[in-house]
Amino acid sequence: MKKFMDRDFLLTTETAKKLYHEYAEVMPIIDYHCHIVPQEIYEDRRFENITQVWLGADHYKWRQMRSNGVEERYITGDATDREKFQKWAETLEMAIGNPLYHWSHLELQRYFGYEGYLNGETAEEVWNLCNEKLTQPDMSARNLIRKSGVTLLCTTDDPIDSLEWHKKIAEDDSFEVKVLPAWRPDKAMYMEKSDYVEYLGKLSEVSGVTVNSFQSLIDALRKRIEFFADMGCVVSDHGLAYVMHADATKEELEGIFARRLAGEMPDAMEEAKFKTAFLIAMGKEYHKRNWVMQLHYGVKRDNSQRVFKALGPDAGIDCISNYTPSAQLADFLNALDVTDELPKTIVYSLNPIDNAAIGTIIGCFQNASAVGKIQQGSAWWFNDHKTGMQEQMTSLASLGLLGNFVGMLTDSRSFLSYTRHEYFRRIMCELIGGWVENGEYPADYKALEKIVKGISYENAVRYFGL
Amino acid sequence: MKKFMDRDFLLTTETAKKLYHEYAEVMPIIDYHCHIVPQEIYEDRRFENITQVWLGADHYKWRQMRSNGVEERYITGDATDREKFQKWAETLEMAIGNPLYHWSHLELQRYFGYEGYLNGETAEEVWNLCNEKLTQPDMSARNLIRKSGVTLLCTTDDPIDSLEWHKKIAEDDSFEVKVLPAWRPDKAMYMEKSDYVEYLGKLSEVSGVTVNSFQSLIDALRKRIEFFADMGCVVSDHGLAYVMHADATKEELEGIFARRLAGEMPDAMEEAKFKTAFLIAMGKEYHKRNWVMQLHYGVKRDNSQRVFKALGPDAGIDCISNYTPSAQLADFLNALDVTDELPKTIVYSLNPIDNAAIGTIIGCFQNASAVGKIQQGSAWWFNDHKTGMQEQMTSLASLGLLGNFVGMLTDSRSFLSYTRHEYFRRIMCELIGGWVENGEYPADYKALEKIVKGISYENAVRYFGL
Amino acid sequence: MKKFMDRDFLLTTETAKKLYHEYAEVMPIIDYHCHIVPQEIYEDRRFENITQVWLGADHYKWRQMRSNGVEERYITGDATDREKFQKWAETLEMAIGNPLYHWSHLELQRYFGYEGYLNGETAEEVWNLCNEKLTQPDMSARNLIRKSGVTLLCTTDDPIDSLEWHKKIAEDDSFEVKVLPAWRPDKAMYMEKSDYVEYLGKLSEVSGVTVNSFQSLIDALRKRIEFFADMGCVVSDHGLAYVMHADATKEELEGIFARRLAGEMPDAMEEAKFKTAFLIAMGKEYHKRNWVMQLHYGVKRDNSQRVFKALGPDAGIDCISNYTPSAQLADFLNALDVTDELPKTIVYSLNPIDNAAIGTIIGCFQNASAVGKIQQGSAWWFNDHKTGMQEQMTSLASLGLLGNFVGMLTDSRSFLSYTRHEYFRRIMCELIGGWVENGEYPADYKALEKIVKGISYENAVRYFGL
Repeated sequence: MKKFMDRDFLLTTETAKKLYHEYAEVMPIIDYHCHIVPQEIYEDRRFENITQVWLGADHYKWRQMRSNGVEERYITGDATDREKFQKWAETLEMAIGNPLYHWSHLELQRYFGYEGYLNGETAEEVWNLCNEKLTQPDMSARNLIRKSGVTLLCTTDDPIDSLEWHKKIAEDDSFEVKVLPAWRPDKAMYMEKSDYVEYLGKLSEVSGVTVNSFQSLIDALRKRIEFFADMGCVVSDHGLAYVMHADATKEELEGIFARRLAGEMPDAMEEAKFKTAFLIAMGKEYHKRNWVMQLHYGVKRDNSQRVFKALGPDAGIDCISNYTPSAQLADFLNALDVTDELPKTIVYSLNPIDNAAIGTIIGCFQNASAVGKIQQGSAWWFNDHKTGMQEQMTSLASLGLLGNFVGMLTDSRSFLSYTRHEYFRRIMCELIGGWVENGEYPADYKALEKIVKGISYENAVRYFGL
Repeated sequence: MKKFMDRDFLLTTETAKKLYHEYAEVMPIIDYHCHIVPQEIYEDRRFENITQVWLGADHYKWRQMRSNGVEERYITGDATDREKFQKWAETLEMAIGNPLYHWSHLELQRYFGYEGYLNGETAEEVWNLCNEKLTQPDMSARNLIRKSGVTLLCTTDDPIDSLEWHKKIAEDDSFEVKVLPAWRPDKAMYMEKSDYVEYLGKLSEVSGVTVNSFQSLIDALRKRIEFFADMGCVVSDHGLAYVMHADATKEELEGIFARRLAGEMPDAMEEAKFKTAFLIAMGKEYHKRNWVMQLHYGVKRDNSQRVFKALGPDAGIDCISNYTPSAQLADFLNALDVTDELPKTIVYSLNPIDNAAIGTIIGCFQNASAVGKIQQGSAWWFNDHKTGMQEQMTSLASLGLLGNFVGMLTDSRSFLSYTRHEYFRRIMCELIGGWVENGEYPADYKALEKIVKGISYENAVRYFGL
Repeated sequence: MKKFMDRDFLLTTETAKKLYHEYAEVMPIIDYHCHIVPQEIYEDRRFENITQVWLGADHYKWRQMRSNGVEERYITGDATDREKFQKWAETLEMAIGNPLYHWSHLELQRYFGYEGYLNGETAEEVWNLCNEKLTQPDMSARNLIRKSGVTLLCTTDDPIDSLEWHKKIAEDDSFEVKVLPAWRPDKAMYMEKSDYVEYLGKLSEVSGVTVNSFQSLIDALRKRIEFFADMGCVVSDHGLAYVMHADATKEELEGIFARRLAGEMPDAMEEAKFKTAFLIAMGKEYHKRNWVMQLHYGVKRDNSQRVFKALGPDAGIDCISNYTPSAQLADFLNALDVTDELPKTIVYSLNPIDNAAIGTIIGCFQNASAVGKIQQGSAWWFNDHKTGMQEQMTSLASLGLLGNFVGMLTDSRSFLSYTRHEYFRRIMCELIGGWVENGEYPADYKALEKIVKGISYENAVRYFGL
């Protein structure tokens, strides 16, 4: 029996161990997609206790606590932080086979030096240990980033954001890690939202372009893209129910937009036409600037209206949507490719059953403008677990070139989540090492080093042009 | 090489063996969902030969025999029982990797003491052995249930059923195993069936409520729910093509229902509206009584009209429907949750590709009213095999709390099917044991005992309130 | 560590090795579905260099080269063959976990005696070795087929094809391998194509039946089916976006067809009605003649219009379509089964998530007219890799009778692709051997020999009536 989460955690063969310890473990981290609040970096935020760090905003954990029959007051309510921690510790014990079990213990090991396991009985000991550690200077936001080996991270930012904290961080010589904004214009696309017109008002103000037509919407966003580019941005992101493709004339689009401005909600087809045109317009802007376009889809959000009313979005009440037509994804990419304006693109579906379809679609649009130009993104959100990552990488390898994969990102708002890169790298090395051990790829360590270091770090450097 | 299906069948690690033999094997069985005919329990049915037991109504086996090119007369026709058994034995040999291979041999081992393997050549020996054993007193229906360690079972019953056999069993002190009815009102929901109005007539009669409107339909069913509750029922079941959500006003519903009473068939949208309202009304009744709602979906039945005409339903001609929109499942659960009337619910899809979507949906509706309130059901029907169970449990573990899983059921009409619980427990212990052996969960046997005994038995006791 | 792709490649247990080396490896090959050009067989084509063999028409490889950022001139353009080979060699190194890695090295081992591995550095050595070997007489088309152990192969042919090369091959006593045509009437079905009416003109001419109605279309095709049957054809093939079922009256069909002749394009429903009727009519003809019907679906073709304009079809720009309604597949099969005119049928989906649905659908239509009458086809095209084959066989075994599986085909236009049968057999033996080693099937070598030889060869002989 292997020891619980020891040095060779998830590594079962000699080759896997060698690949991990010699090539993967030593590489720095580029976290090209996260939700860290830049202000917290600038202000070098500190935490009073482990509940603040772990349970403040982590809807992954909230869901599990509810699954364990924990009352809401111990999750998002007014119970004390110590009480909440106790409930979480008791929940974790039942989370056998869940990534939270591994993430939590990796964080306890790497940041707090705790080698035991957390449950209802050890909660007091862990609480005291973590909180004592959190008082130490090396546990500030910046130091956590530093000690994790991060060289660059990209936050997630709205077009109307002033990026003031990014500016301040960039101007602060005392922090050597690059913190770049990422462009996420979802609010400018979700025309069916009740506060859409209000949002357009803010966008008009910030951009200096009065948004009174579809064309002026794109113009305003272009202004902001230019601003983001000046601030170092190289990557965009879109959150979608599905990637759609519905053709429309300029007149149709202006009609849909004008009616929305007048307060009339679009029907499903109008919405699809608008969003298609919006994304194509954005894609062309990204292509001009050699930005990367990230497409995240397959999500249905805020499913429990009761919880949503109480807690708002990101409350642990989202799920997979299995309406993700691959034909429309292919047609959407073609709509940009046909004029040779398809940017580098990373495709992520929340539904793991889309792995094979995505793997075949990306293969249709590769070309010499970039190595691995169209990527299947790392196993995302609900799929960010051992099986999910194994399946995504096995599918990608079976259908494309795993060697060019840009690899892992945290997608997290926590300063402790960098251990997810470690988790990913272990799983990647176990997979590749297993193939070598089984005679499926030669023990050619020159090639293996290139592949493993590439997926860990170097492919991302090349791909994002960092 | 491991011996064929020996004591450690499917258990490859020391931890898996320990978990199975010390914790899982010793637990009794709650079979909370089966299709046993209660009259056969009351009358303590006996069997003349193994063909009666195995091939009388088992459409799983019929399908395989047809796949082996066996003529229908040897399957459901007028061949002798010995001839049929021969054809089955020859078929089984080709069923390598099929759960029927394991189920059949587990049954031969546990109930008949046969340690060899069945094929065309050993058929005569097995036929004689089994038939001799079947003459012994311990092979009656009740004794088979007893020797399997069953403490409670739930049958599947129509709202108009008198439950007379349940009454008689309950009054019979000589049988200590609890036999409860389960509520399955499919016939009251399938308004598109030709005999629907006829069925409503019977329901009117039995309930004492004249069903002449949607409202009175629900009233009549409520009467029957009360009766079922009095008889100890705690669980309901619904068989659906898919879980739908289509809003309708009361007036619309009454209009649809009135037209159906007048002989007019609903269109697809009307059918969806009616069924949505029906299920919501039922769910609210279950919630009041703390019943469990089971939703079984993803089925397309009776596909070969030719076979259906000859043999009727449950003839081995059903398949997976892959139209199972996750958005509607989420919206349906929300429609009950929004008024806080969502009962404990178990969701089963016949399509294994729905595992991840279900895993994320159930997480949206958990709360403190029950531990593991919304469950993903055990790998169902066509998925009830080693890979299907591994995938369902791995998915559930990755997305939720495997530790709270209510585990296995037979879904069978046979008195020999309890070995499926053994099969499930072996697979579950192999999975969990593998994680422990690989350092993914600590060798904390206090926690592991709780988890393994929980999934085997104790979670079901708690969940169903038995 | 196992040696790279040695004698026991992919075989990790003693049983797997025994099954492969004693039963599978020694069997000949029936390649019942390929795209070899019969003229090349008749003329005993020879190749100047390895680039001609490998990169001339292989869109699998083209996709990977584009994924590696290779410029199109080194793929399909005017670079020299040596340059193209270099780019392919460099690409291959990154294709860890991809079937092309294994296919390429199996071909290098079996046909060229090269035991090393190909990458940018060894490219020169491999180039020289292969090209030298290609000058030898045993490397002609016929000799490659012979040395691969092929006893029979079926090409893929259009109804208007004269089959002249098949005739010549059949008349040539010096070639002992049977080369049969296969019937693929896609062009007669794709009424939405711009050149459809032109095609009908050719069909009229070749068949002697003036195609001016739906009925005369079927009549013309029947003439050609008779001709194909005379030429030894026993198998048909259809390429479909999805298998549809839409009922139509004769009048509707004739109306749709008449409008198309007049230049009016069908809408989606008309297209579905026409194709359904077309396929049913074809199926009935196949049933009469005991032909096998192959249904290949789940494809979306020619996704990059830019590449399509430059290179035409089969340029590596196809993908999986995930609109594959299982209900319609079941209804389509029933439409033939209801009159007992369903031919032997092999169902292949390009989407691996359809495995379970297909496995349950085929089970509904089995009967005594053939052993394993309705088959799930081997993991197809994008799924033709280790994981894809494991999953297809595991699913088939879990849901049906793996023992009756007709097994592998190359689906290739290359004379070196027969190593894919070896690859398949190794994976099949590893799977079955693993079950035996794990005590899941007895070490009954009489049964195992029947199963392994059956899946490798004998089931196909029986099934196709060869």
